[in-house]
Amino acid sequence: MEQLLIIKIGGNVIDQPEALENFLNEYAGIAGKKILIHGGGKIATDISRALGIETQMVDGRRITSRETLKVVTMVYGGLINKTIVSGLQARGCHALGLTGADANCMVAKKRSGKNIDYGFVGDIEQVNVNPVKQFLNAGLAPVFAPLTHDGKGTLLNTNADTIAATLATALCVTYEIRLVYCFDKKGVLASTDEDSVIPRLTLAQYRHLKEEGIVSKGMLPKLDEAFAALQAGVAAVILCHASQLQLAVQHHPPVGTTLSLQ
Amino acid sequence: MEQLLIIKIGGNVIDQPEALENFLNEYAGIAGKKILIHGGGKIATDISRALGIETQMVDGRRITSRETLKVVTMVYGGLINKTIVSGLQARGCHALGLTGADANCMVAKKRSGKNIDYGFVGDIEQVNVNPVKQFLNAGLAPVFAPLTHDGKGTLLNTNADTIAATLATALCVTYEIRLVYCFDKKGVLASTDEDSVIPRLTLAQYRHLKEEGIVSKGMLPKLDEAFAALQAGVAAVILCHASQLQLAVQHHPPVGTTLSLQ
Repeated sequence: MEQLLIIKIGGNVIDQPEALENFLNEYAGIAGKKILIHGGGKIATDISRALGIETQMVDGRRITSRETLKVVTMVYGGLINKTIVSGLQARGCHALGLTGADANCMVAKKRSGKNIDYGFVGDIEQVNVNPVKQFLNAGLAPVFAPLTHDGKGTLLNTNADTIAATLATALCVTYEIRLVYCFDKKGVLASTDEDSVIPRLTLAQYRHLKEEGIVSKGMLPKLDEAFAALQAGVAAVILCHASQLQLAVQHHPPVGTTLSLQ
Repeated sequence: MEQLLIIKIGGNVIDQPEALENFLNEYAGIAGKKILIHGGGKIATDISRALGIETQMVDGRRITSRETLKVVTMVYGGLINKTIVSGLQARGCHALGLTGADANCMVAKKRSGKNIDYGFVGDIEQVNVNPVKQFLNAGLAPVFAPLTHDGKGTLLNTNADTIAATLATALCVTYEIRLVYCFDKKGVLASTDEDSVIPRLTLAQYRHLKEEGIVSKGMLPKLDEAFAALQAGVAAVILCHASQLQLAVQHHPPVGTTLSLQ
């Protein structure tokens, strides 16, 4: 099977211009078929504040009011996505910016919370792999903003980690996929020591670390989804520092943490 | 030759939700290969004001400071483009949102004014028709925001009328192109009477109207570029009201004003 890299870059990297430039160099330098998914970062919060829109967070999740949806559509779909696309094109990477609405790539359903109304947040229901494959076959490198749509004219805010895992799962019938989460840590850490990277994390070890409360709370959804992607047939999942992407995908053994079912 | 419709929709239509919805119905209802280019509208000015960024205009042209560039990237490339794309997808039109940076479709040069520094405004130097043709052949309907890039990592603000005429000119080797400018008038008017539409306007008549000062100043660049596109080989240019798009492209004779070289 043909190889495909699916790489997610977190908002904390996007917020730092130098770190972002460095990441774009790393990303553009990787050959072969690849897809990038970017997060949001603090810019949306800053813009919201400047526009007098209150950002409400519940359990680390942004509540997306109609006004907030406009801001994230502007910031994620416009400012961040196009900055990354033009930055990649300048580096010879044939990037194409997308949201789930573009070419109808990802259709989501507005989340109906039991106790909380998350607002315009979407849970992906359908990935249309054909346009994505057409773009890849045309030599393009899709760059997804964390936005989907409901197919009825409403855009929805969707977590970038989830988009990455869902795309990887949907495309693993066609491609041998490595899913890489780039963030501001060197991998999954065994302690508060930034260098305590666990090179290989099995599902059993992860469950143990989870029970012991060793893995930080913010990492749990990411890792749960990543292990689910592995179980669904994604060939490999790696978590690494954004500045070490090439070492994570071009070297053996990779830097960072490689997840493993057994 | 295969037919292609290139349609430009002005900012004044985008600013009115009902007019925009109506236009999207008209646009989605047209069969065949088509490309939409949208303008900016007042939203960017409103957002700039709210963010405390001063909008400077010279001769009806926005001066694009670095801060203004961020706002237009958000508003044109994000909010407006993705609102249109999701609205078209909801109507069964397989839209794909683009800027000139995406797939490197349009490369521009930052304008160096003699007396005025226009800031981050780009004049198109190169249209890469291959990705555009690939999208059309894949059954997609490209939707262009009025943004280009310099190929070196900088996005540039580019007039939507100019993008429409330039795309039409670049693609007329491959397609029989009808270029349609949709706006809030019924066509080119012979007087201040909104119903005084000139059904067929020849280049000689246009020159005469121009000398007499009958055509409004804001229309001149649009018409100059439109006649240049005709001279370059575009099959037809029509100017019509946004609510009458289908009557302009599906009926004979078309409503609105049809430009003609002779």
